[in-house]
Amino acid sequence: MNQHQPQQTPATPNEVTSTLEGWYALHDFRSINWTAWKTADDEERAGALDELQEFMKEWSVTEEAGLGSSAVYTIVGQKADFVMLHLRETLEDLNKLENEFNKTTFAKYTTKTYSYVSVVELSNYLSKEEDPMQNPQIVARLKPVLNKARYICFYPMNKKRDLDDNWYMLSMDERRTLMRSHGLIGRSYAGKVKQIISGSIGFDDWEWGVTLFSDDALQFKKLIYEMRFDEVSARYGEFGSFYVGSVLNEETFEDMLKL
Amino acid sequence: MNQHQPQQTPATPNEVTSTLEGWYALHDFRSINWTAWKTADDEERAGALDELQEFMKEWSVTEEAGLGSSAVYTIVGQKADFVMLHLRETLEDLNKLENEFNKTTFAKYTTKTYSYVSVVELSNYLSKEEDPMQNPQIVARLKPVLNKARYICFYPMNKKRDLDDNWYMLSMDERRTLMRSHGLIGRSYAGKVKQIISGSIGFDDWEWGVTLFSDDALQFKKLIYEMRFDEVSARYGEFGSFYVGSVLNEETFEDMLKL
Amino acid sequence: MNQHQPQQTPATPNEVTSTLEGWYALHDFRSINWTAWKTADDEERAGALDELQEFMKEWSVTEEAGLGSSAVYTIVGQKADFVMLHLRETLEDLNKLENEFNKTTFAKYTTKTYSYVSVVELSNYLSKEEDPMQNPQIVARLKPVLNKARYICFYPMNKKRDLDDNWYMLSMDERRTLMRSHGLIGRSYAGKVKQIISGSIGFDDWEWGVTLFSDDALQFKKLIYEMRFDEVSARYGEFGSFYVGSVLNEETFEDMLKL
Amino acid sequence: MNQHQPQQTPATPNEVTSTLEGWYALHDFRSINWTAWKTADDEERAGALDELQEFMKEWSVTEEAGLGSSAVYTIVGQKADFVMLHLRETLEDLNKLENEFNKTTFAKYTTKTYSYVSVVELSNYLSKEEDPMQNPQIVARLKPVLNKARYICFYPMNKKRDLDDNWYMLSMDERRTLMRSHGLIGRSYAGKVKQIISGSIGFDDWEWGVTLFSDDALQFKKLIYEMRFDEVSARYGEFGSFYVGSVLNEETFEDMLKL
Amino acid sequence: MNQHQPQQTPATPNEVTSTLEGWYALHDFRSINWTAWKTADDEERAGALDELQEFMKEWSVTEEAGLGSSAVYTIVGQKADFVMLHLRETLEDLNKLENEFNKTTFAKYTTKTYSYVSVVELSNYLSKEEDPMQNPQIVARLKPVLNKARYICFYPMNKKRDLDDNWYMLSMDERRTLMRSHGLIGRSYAGKVKQIISGSIGFDDWEWGVTLFSDDALQFKKLIYEMRFDEVSARYGEFGSFYVGSVLNEETFEDMLKL
Repeated sequence: MNQHQPQQTPATPNEVTSTLEGWYALHDFRSINWTAWKTADDEERAGALDELQEFMKEWSVTEEAGLGSSAVYTIVGQKADFVMLHLRETLEDLNKLENEFNKTTFAKYTTKTYSYVSVVELSNYLSKEEDPMQNPQIVARLKPVLNKARYICFYPMNKKRDLDDNWYMLSMDERRTLMRSHGLIGRSYAGKVKQIISGSIGFDDWEWGVTLFSDDALQFKKLIYEMRFDEVSARYGEFGSFYVGSVLNEETFEDMLKL
Repeated sequence: MNQHQPQQTPATPNEVTSTLEGWYALHDFRSINWTAWKTADDEERAGALDELQEFMKEWSVTEEAGLGSSAVYTIVGQKADFVMLHLRETLEDLNKLENEFNKTTFAKYTTKTYSYVSVVELSNYLSKEEDPMQNPQIVARLKPVLNKARYICFYPMNKKRDLDDNWYMLSMDERRTLMRSHGLIGRSYAGKVKQIISGSIGFDDWEWGVTLFSDDALQFKKLIYEMRFDEVSARYGEFGSFYVGSVLNEETFEDMLKL
Repeated sequence: MNQHQPQQTPATPNEVTSTLEGWYALHDFRSINWTAWKTADDEERAGALDELQEFMKEWSVTEEAGLGSSAVYTIVGQKADFVMLHLRETLEDLNKLENEFNKTTFAKYTTKTYSYVSVVELSNYLSKEEDPMQNPQIVARLKPVLNKARYICFYPMNKKRDLDDNWYMLSMDERRTLMRSHGLIGRSYAGKVKQIISGSIGFDDWEWGVTLFSDDALQFKKLIYEMRFDEVSARYGEFGSFYVGSVLNEETFEDMLKL
Repeated sequence: MNQHQPQQTPATPNEVTSTLEGWYALHDFRSINWTAWKTADDEERAGALDELQEFMKEWSVTEEAGLGSSAVYTIVGQKADFVMLHLRETLEDLNKLENEFNKTTFAKYTTKTYSYVSVVELSNYLSKEEDPMQNPQIVARLKPVLNKARYICFYPMNKKRDLDDNWYMLSMDERRTLMRSHGLIGRSYAGKVKQIISGSIGFDDWEWGVTLFSDDALQFKKLIYEMRFDEVSARYGEFGSFYVGSVLNEETFEDMLKL
Repeated sequence: MNQHQPQQTPATPNEVTSTLEGWYALHDFRSINWTAWKTADDEERAGALDELQEFMKEWSVTEEAGLGSSAVYTIVGQKADFVMLHLRETLEDLNKLENEFNKTTFAKYTTKTYSYVSVVELSNYLSKEEDPMQNPQIVARLKPVLNKARYICFYPMNKKRDLDDNWYMLSMDERRTLMRSHGLIGRSYAGKVKQIISGSIGFDDWEWGVTLFSDDALQFKKLIYEMRFDEVSARYGEFGSFYVGSVLNEETFEDMLKL
């Protein structure tokens, strides 16, 4: 039974990074069933589009009320045709949006391909705010209004727990030092890439979702590639599927669906 | 042939943690086939809902008889639309419930997405009860009446067996010490999160199912995140898919299905 | 090129455990397409059930002739609705049974979910029989008549080959010592759990199939859990999906299908 | 940056084993859609069978012309109902065969389940032939006429590249020594098992396909099991799915399809 | 907390290899639904083929304008029936092509099987160009006109990050030395195999896509096999699915579809 090398303080759990949470997030990826869409007659298609527009218009109402934000982007490649990204106050709000979409006529012409449930999060590595929710900059990051950049990139990720490469067995100090260097890379892309980190422990199959926005898709590649050489990613990052696409509005969405 | 480092007592299996078992559990996740549901006419839908209500009413009869407990929750995201959680005296009871649901008209509008078979379990790490089944508190934990908290979180898990990180090669003492610390985190969430641990070795693909209940979904994230820094999870935990959702009753279930 | 630490006898393959083989085994898991079953009219269903009964009756003829044995069990959860377990003299016999079932009307109301092809096996770790096939006890274990216990548990497994945890790099002596302790646990469940080990190297995706029978489903969990702390499982066991269910006969099978 | 232990000759790639290639191989696994087959009327079925027979007759023409060889075997279990194995001069020949089958009426009653693309290969570990293609024994092994043994076994495999167990980091001498011992096991099954090794690097998802033929299916299990204790398999072998079945000719194929 | 061995410069991210990017790439793999294709009548098929030809003709217009390049190849085996490879200036261009194909009548007879999104890339390991985009040779490699070689081979890949085998923890010098040797193998195939490397970090699930072209399919196998013994692949390469096939033009595509 010599496999377990005793740790200095085996019965004391490691110090936990504190986090702040904001809006809940649903990434709802769908494919279009083109054969069904083409088989429908003009009237059916027009009706479906009307319902879709109406559904999307309610997003603005919510956004204006400060109760959430939504966006829709195409997805390039076969993984999906588009993603609806919703930020809302509660899980029930997200669930309701999901069901409302499913009840539209347009939904009949789509199939579900992937979804992600999480909550917008800020990690409090460097400082301890007195009451962070009184800080408008922090609130703006926890409840971000989506600004419809030209491109989106989404991927889920874990911190690795694999023998000697185990993020969760590092001390708080080690994690803080590593994250500081990691953050510097991110900050060097300020103005070029905007990111939303959302935590999904307990909500979905990875620990975090990362949603990036940019007007230049190459910046996604450059940022993530550069980070991959940083120890936090190189040694401790585990990544799921990557999705990339470009922004849609009601008009360009309709264009995309025009036969 | 030098790879096998002899253990002190190679031919003596390690001391096994004793466990107590209660009700068998079936987590039955389903998606709604919205296209079929919308295609059905009003009468069909009304009939299907009636049957569903009747099916759910029998759950109360069982619960009142002390023979089990059931609950239904939505699931956020595409993994499922709802989960029916059943606790019963025997595997046959669970199998019968599953088939009864499959025979309802409503089932025709759903598809199976995931299920989990297990048995409610208490691990006896700390003390040896004289006859635990005479202890009403223990019986209440082994045969728990589901109290319909606002949110549910479910995930299956294993204890890792990966080279140097092998839970099952630890001595009973090491496991007990590690679990004591782990349990302290859980206890610090008393009143905020209620958990049911069910064992599934021999019954399903992971070793345990964890079902959490809370009136604040964020507590799931906080609890599991905090535990992840504890050695039991950090070094020895392996996790499957996470499901999260909110409670349904007969009325809100019907609301969800209203077109 | 320093990664390969030379072994003492690199060109001499390790001594191989001898095995005895009996009947070939097919585990044929199916789900019921309840929607199709409910859509069929009474006559179709009655006809399908008649054919199913006839198909199952031939199993008894085979069993009486000593040419094989078959059983059918429900499976709890969504992985399958039932499993047909067939033991026969040849792979062609199994293939024929599979096709005969597929040709029945009833098969139309089922979908394939999983199958396992293997051959009943005894490992000859401890002694060298002179002619084991003359020993009626050994023949009874290699060609076992299924006794229709109340519950079944099935799972496939491998012996691990992962860096330092490599069963196949252990010497025959080490394997024999480890298996002796492992076997003691199994023997302590004599009278409670009956097991059939079938080898599937060259036949299916895992190295062995394990089929357990008991009148108390909890014994599956207790036996497998206890074994998991034994080095053979803890360090060298790799497990696939677990299936559990309860016995069906022609009558209870028909009950299960009654709408 | 201390993780990379310098090798003696880091910039010199390891000496590569030379290989000889013969016919390209396509393993084309299919399931029968029994419901569609049973729903078809007698005339449709007769027509489909006629087309199938014609398709299979062309295989003999090719074989007689020395331009390839084909065989068809059942597959036991749900992974497939049969496999068509084609050996041909070019990838285009294989592609054409695949498409020709897809265009038959019979194909409509089948579904694709798995396929494997590779090229028959001999590894030149032990000696350097002057012009191997002048050696009729070598040509017969590179362009083998399939002799329709009673049973087939197919599986794809890799040589492992996992930390200390990395076949491709071994020196040529180490690989040659290990393969010599491995080959001795194979040779001890001469007359009982015939094998075709086909390379699939660049063509399919594993590095090799192994196709075994025997008149006794147990010999597959015994051979592969014995090899598993040899270091080449024990430490460096990675295996995909295993398929086993028995030979079909035009007559027995038709029998299998008779309702 | 002794698992993290401090690195000399823990807070300084590793030096990043600079890369140059050219055209975006979409590999769009499709299967033909032969049953639907055969069920269509002659007129429908003729119409679908006309639309397909028209769709493909636009590729030439784009190529002549220097705005991209496209090619179509069969794929051998069941993974797909053909792949359309598109190189274009923007992600939106690729997305539009994908949707245009989906809107054709021919698309109705196909199913999506796999796709890959990336951007043509040159790694700048050896020299620092002053302004590489002024160098016509470099531009020709970043925006390559596809020359329709007889065979194509595609696979995605990662550089490994697995404990001691972690490409991203190597120093720039180590990576440069290793890549130099790797490149020598590639160069020895000059004239036999042409390769396009495209980066997909942030765009798809692997880090790179590799597309090889040759008039002799065996050269794919020989090149990749030889590289596998080189440390870059042997120790640090992780590979996805491999696809191989032969070139199609409008005429041979139509031949392939002729019943």
